[in-house]
Amino acid sequence: MRICRFNNDRIGVIEGSGLIDVSDLLDMRPKWPLPPWDWVAPQLGALSKDKWAGRTSIPLSGVRLESPIANPGKIIGAPINYKAHIDEANADREINQGKTYTSLDEFGLFLKAGSSLIGPSDSIRPRFQDRRTDHEVELAVVIGKKASRVPREEALSFVLGYTIGLDITVRGKEFPGFRKSPDTFAVLGPWLVTADEIADPNKLDLSLSVSGEVRQKSNTSRMIFDVARLIEYASAFYTLYPGDVIMTGTPEGVGPVSPGDQLVAEIDGIGQLNIQVGETAN
Amino acid sequence: MRICRFNNDRIGVIEGSGLIDVSDLLDMRPKWPLPPWDWVAPQLGALSKDKWAGRTSIPLSGVRLESPIANPGKIIGAPINYKAHIDEANADREINQGKTYTSLDEFGLFLKAGSSLIGPSDSIRPRFQDRRTDHEVELAVVIGKKASRVPREEALSFVLGYTIGLDITVRGKEFPGFRKSPDTFAVLGPWLVTADEIADPNKLDLSLSVSGEVRQKSNTSRMIFDVARLIEYASAFYTLYPGDVIMTGTPEGVGPVSPGDQLVAEIDGIGQLNIQVGETAN
Repeated sequence: MRICRFNNDRIGVIEGSGLIDVSDLLDMRPKWPLPPWDWVAPQLGALSKDKWAGRTSIPLSGVRLESPIANPGKIIGAPINYKAHIDEANADREINQGKTYTSLDEFGLFLKAGSSLIGPSDSIRPRFQDRRTDHEVELAVVIGKKASRVPREEALSFVLGYTIGLDITVRGKEFPGFRKSPDTFAVLGPWLVTADEIADPNKLDLSLSVSGEVRQKSNTSRMIFDVARLIEYASAFYTLYPGDVIMTGTPEGVGPVSPGDQLVAEIDGIGQLNIQVGETAN
Repeated sequence: MRICRFNNDRIGVIEGSGLIDVSDLLDMRPKWPLPPWDWVAPQLGALSKDKWAGRTSIPLSGVRLESPIANPGKIIGAPINYKAHIDEANADREINQGKTYTSLDEFGLFLKAGSSLIGPSDSIRPRFQDRRTDHEVELAVVIGKKASRVPREEALSFVLGYTIGLDITVRGKEFPGFRKSPDTFAVLGPWLVTADEIADPNKLDLSLSVSGEVRQKSNTSRMIFDVARLIEYASAFYTLYPGDVIMTGTPEGVGPVSPGDQLVAEIDGIGQLNIQVGETAN
């Protein structure tokens, strides 16, 4: 099943080139204080097709697509998870800033601010005119169940689904979590594909083009920590909750974006995320 | 005004040794999706004493105190903001892991996971039996209004109030934001003191004792980035929202905690936060 959020917080299920609005099938009335996770995410896995038989489809072409997860408790990033990206980072002083990247567990995972999250119908807005701002395309894993100290062998059963993530990044000396957290720097979309539709998340082609030119092209089989290992590793440090997102790291080919650029990210079995780069934020 | 959260999400105003329950004066019905900030925080500044005249006080001694902010959109930390702490970190291989700490803006700020947040009536639970876990006491600033690119001169007008923060930390090589994000590693309390009651947040004695022994003792005047500069710096990178918390960094004297320890943190004009260290989390 492919599930999107659209037109100011409606929930839709994709069918062909259209979607069915299923918002009324979900409990949208959270009680304060929210738990530190997404209110609706755990309900998405239980949506059942027989509940919307006969409803009219809305053409996707006329719809505003938002981040499929509205309130992820954590947007987690994996900093160096493809060998070819580690090599390019270690060769580029603007990326490595004099550090040598070794292995992921020497660095750990980082958090992107929740306030940085947007969907495909928004625009990425660079934060600083005088600093290099890069695209990074990634497979994004959405957690479906509370997970703490999960062994690798059981980890995939905690996945609600997958989506495409863009981990926009200012280059510089500061912690990655800081440079990757400006407003609009976390893009998720175009929709969530439930885990049952992805036979193996570690065998997916992924690519990103900027204004028609392919910049990144790889396969998730080249991840150093695969999806199960990332969940094991993250959940050893902290509890994962429904709607938490793990961005699994970017392959090689990262590079700067500029106002006016059109980004097209694609992952096998998920689809295509289109988003534009707008003007630098005031 | 001193405002607390208590007994499963009631909101109270402290008066003497008791509190007045003012929960009914606040809108507790958030609409999904929540914005990426705390729903109730922006309402706290508007609470007015004449609304609860004549209500009966509840003794504080019988109350379960929770984190005064329930759903901070961001829990931001300043890694190295007291010179004497930078010196102790650079002298202790277990803290510096071979790195040399220089100045805050070479490192930037980090984020603690929202899922790590607890209040004084909970227990801190170490995550790893075999890794050093340290206490760090800090002045915590709670933002009251949306703030983006705020100049230092105006920054304090964006503060809702202040509370005491404990930034519990596993030592090791990973990014601080990762080592500081296990469950229960962000403690806020005992209450929020509104900004009008703190004449100068950069002139407050702060201290922490562990089971009766004073371990940390300093004054916020020794912060390298003062409160206004931290808000200026953070809001240059991302938008701050009501309820966002900035932990302003810890002074020297950090050291390990163990199950059974009783921590008492104290900051001038705010009060005393008491919390115990429980068993290592399973």
